[in-house]
Amino acid sequence: MLPGNLHTELRAAFPPDRFYTDPVDCYAYAYDNSRKIFPPDAVLFPLTAEEVKLAVVLCNRYGVPLIPRGRGTGTAGGSLPELGGIALSLERMANIISVDPANRVIVAEPGVLNQVVQDAAKPYGFFWPPDPSSAMFSSIGGNIATGAGGPHAVKYGTTRDHVLGLKAITGAGDYITTGCYTTKGVVGYDLTRLLIGSEGTLAVITEATLKLTALPGAIAGITAHFRDLASCTAAIVKIMALPQLPSALEFLDAGSLNLIRSHYPNMLPAATLAMLMIEVDGSRNDIADAVSAILAACQSDGLIHADQVENTASLWQARKALSPLLREIAPKKINEDVVVPVDTLPQFLDGLTHLSRHYQLHNVNFGHAGNGNIHVNLLINPDDADEVARAERCLDEIFDLVIKLHGTLSGEHGIGSEKRAFVTKEIDRVTLDLMRNIKQLFDPNNILNPGKLFPKPE
Amino acid sequence: MLPGNLHTELRAAFPPDRFYTDPVDCYAYAYDNSRKIFPPDAVLFPLTAEEVKLAVVLCNRYGVPLIPRGRGTGTAGGSLPELGGIALSLERMANIISVDPANRVIVAEPGVLNQVVQDAAKPYGFFWPPDPSSAMFSSIGGNIATGAGGPHAVKYGTTRDHVLGLKAITGAGDYITTGCYTTKGVVGYDLTRLLIGSEGTLAVITEATLKLTALPGAIAGITAHFRDLASCTAAIVKIMALPQLPSALEFLDAGSLNLIRSHYPNMLPAATLAMLMIEVDGSRNDIADAVSAILAACQSDGLIHADQVENTASLWQARKALSPLLREIAPKKINEDVVVPVDTLPQFLDGLTHLSRHYQLHNVNFGHAGNGNIHVNLLINPDDADEVARAERCLDEIFDLVIKLHGTLSGEHGIGSEKRAFVTKEIDRVTLDLMRNIKQLFDPNNILNPGKLFPKPE
Repeated sequence: MLPGNLHTELRAAFPPDRFYTDPVDCYAYAYDNSRKIFPPDAVLFPLTAEEVKLAVVLCNRYGVPLIPRGRGTGTAGGSLPELGGIALSLERMANIISVDPANRVIVAEPGVLNQVVQDAAKPYGFFWPPDPSSAMFSSIGGNIATGAGGPHAVKYGTTRDHVLGLKAITGAGDYITTGCYTTKGVVGYDLTRLLIGSEGTLAVITEATLKLTALPGAIAGITAHFRDLASCTAAIVKIMALPQLPSALEFLDAGSLNLIRSHYPNMLPAATLAMLMIEVDGSRNDIADAVSAILAACQSDGLIHADQVENTASLWQARKALSPLLREIAPKKINEDVVVPVDTLPQFLDGLTHLSRHYQLHNVNFGHAGNGNIHVNLLINPDDADEVARAERCLDEIFDLVIKLHGTLSGEHGIGSEKRAFVTKEIDRVTLDLMRNIKQLFDPNNILNPGKLFPKPE
Repeated sequence: MLPGNLHTELRAAFPPDRFYTDPVDCYAYAYDNSRKIFPPDAVLFPLTAEEVKLAVVLCNRYGVPLIPRGRGTGTAGGSLPELGGIALSLERMANIISVDPANRVIVAEPGVLNQVVQDAAKPYGFFWPPDPSSAMFSSIGGNIATGAGGPHAVKYGTTRDHVLGLKAITGAGDYITTGCYTTKGVVGYDLTRLLIGSEGTLAVITEATLKLTALPGAIAGITAHFRDLASCTAAIVKIMALPQLPSALEFLDAGSLNLIRSHYPNMLPAATLAMLMIEVDGSRNDIADAVSAILAACQSDGLIHADQVENTASLWQARKALSPLLREIAPKKINEDVVVPVDTLPQFLDGLTHLSRHYQLHNVNFGHAGNGNIHVNLLINPDDADEVARAERCLDEIFDLVIKLHGTLSGEHGIGSEKRAFVTKEIDRVTLDLMRNIKQLFDPNNILNPGKLFPKPE
């Protein structure tokens, strides 16, 4: 329940259709793709930076948590109102403020969907490279807050590489402007990238200046089928050693392939135990060279066949089918997003096989192999206490392996609430304390998305 | 003079050849390329992170400024010991720790020269994209501290796009580790990019994980000569609207060309009043297409001729001759580094012409036009008080024009001491206060490079 006076002040400032307090209305803002449920006490829909500021100021005054929210597609629980409070939905701040093709820039409010940015850029021959699989329905504010990536990050980088500047309201209620409008700029500290990936814990983004990239002239797809995992991971390492960076290099393990086969019996050859889906883009000439080089890098005794595919859209059909299928068979799957150096992928995937056997768990692994970014899914039955306990021990060992291999716990999903117990495996206490102090500086009363991103105090 | 006890403690910890106090020895560490002179009271040459930490801890204890220093090639005075204290020269921490071509990574100490990184990467087909004109003699620590760019930033971005992680000692004496070893990673706040461009005011970098890029297969050069400025700037805008990004797009105005002519009479046609030097890289096929497109974009009534040049090294001869020539004719030139959105370059350069006429000043403008990054040089006689006063008024108006056009005061040189009086034109008070508080958090006793980057308190 909100304090009565806060309720009164918000009621005076926001019309009823932009201030929900009925639990039924609020329920749609209680969850994200982590599938945990924490209903907020209220939902606010600001339309302007001034309204965002008012919400922050009032939440400070009354000591009520304020949880910024894009479209709730995050998988790490970053937008869950764990402690109650107000969900601040930015979905109605959805104006594209300017499209400036001469300078390759789009300025947009946080609620603009990623796909809407792509649609606005495309007529001018541009795109915005961050491409989470949620791009059709996730907002750029959410993409920025999580530092979203996607399959094309292997060539184009992630969100942090494609934002020039931000406007935001800090947790202290201050309106700040970061970065600049140009591709170069070194005046002051880089607060832009400090906010990118900060999961709404420092400031609420109210405007973003997005750097656009020219659409490639052409795209080609390759699929490579392997009869064993080792041949497949060896091919990944060889492909990533080529000068030509693929624009996507996606890996599917045997578990992933079997899952697809269970629903699409004729899509995949029976002998395939590991598969790569590779995309290259650029000029037509370059693509021909890159395809040859990649096909050559795939050659080994373990290769069944590798071929260029005519229809690149169909290339993604199997890949995109995976996440919904996983949800269907294992709604409570543990979904990880670890990254290891590319040349340690063979060792890491071997280690995963060993660990899942040891803990008698079924896991499905796939993902952005070109970045070493593997989505490890432990398929557990949440009602089986023993299996849950084994999964927890297994996860702990997986993370230890990742750190031992010089990797990172999350490549694109973020920490949110799901991963915070493991942050200290990667970040030392001193560095983490410095981050906590930065949080304190931006948000002295711990109003903005409290408890997220950091491990719980011991 | 150092406090006696500090002197004693440092003398005990560092051998004489790594702790200079003789003013004659210290003098070489008194200046950078801003040509101001502030002798330090001592110079320390640490070899390890532990020694850096000791220096920070002792300077905190005795309240003595500690000024981290790469190779003193900065132009904004960022490494000047303005308030005395100890110059912390990182030049002897110059080990490459690892070269890892499979993961496209080099790990290096801060004193490693940019060129040494290039030499280490080249045998594997890679390079590290930041390319300040000082690359032969500047250190990666200095490049990171200033967020260095260079001509190839138009295609490859600046230092902030090419560092994966850092180790550093904060001003509080804490050892921190930022970022990760992989190309993706979103665990915790992005302290890596907070340190990049922070000019040694937050922490002393002791190790950097550098992301490498594949060397292009081929390079081609183009020069375009124009009989008037307007035709040249129109060509810049047209070239930057092409999908093919040039790997360099350098502009020379009439003043620059005349300066080159004064020393190399036969290098340039007499009719050329503005010139572009353009580089494209990629595969051979791509280059042919890009050269055609760029030559077409240069066409106008004002074009004298545009041609592909056979020897790309010679392309840079004229450009590289400029800075030393400028120093020769005007040792006290005011050297600016402003950036404007590319499509406002015609308006900005017109404005510059107008302002220099109005204030009866001679200026020479050239630079990285593809990023809108123009080095504006006001050639003044420092003994002419009236000219100096006119130059100051002119500079103020130039900065106002830059901000009006949605630009930034510095694209790659940084603020240091030279530009800090103008920072408030670009960054609002609230955002600047937040940056000051971040400085305070990292460096509570204001030991590290005090007074730099921020405007002096009013």
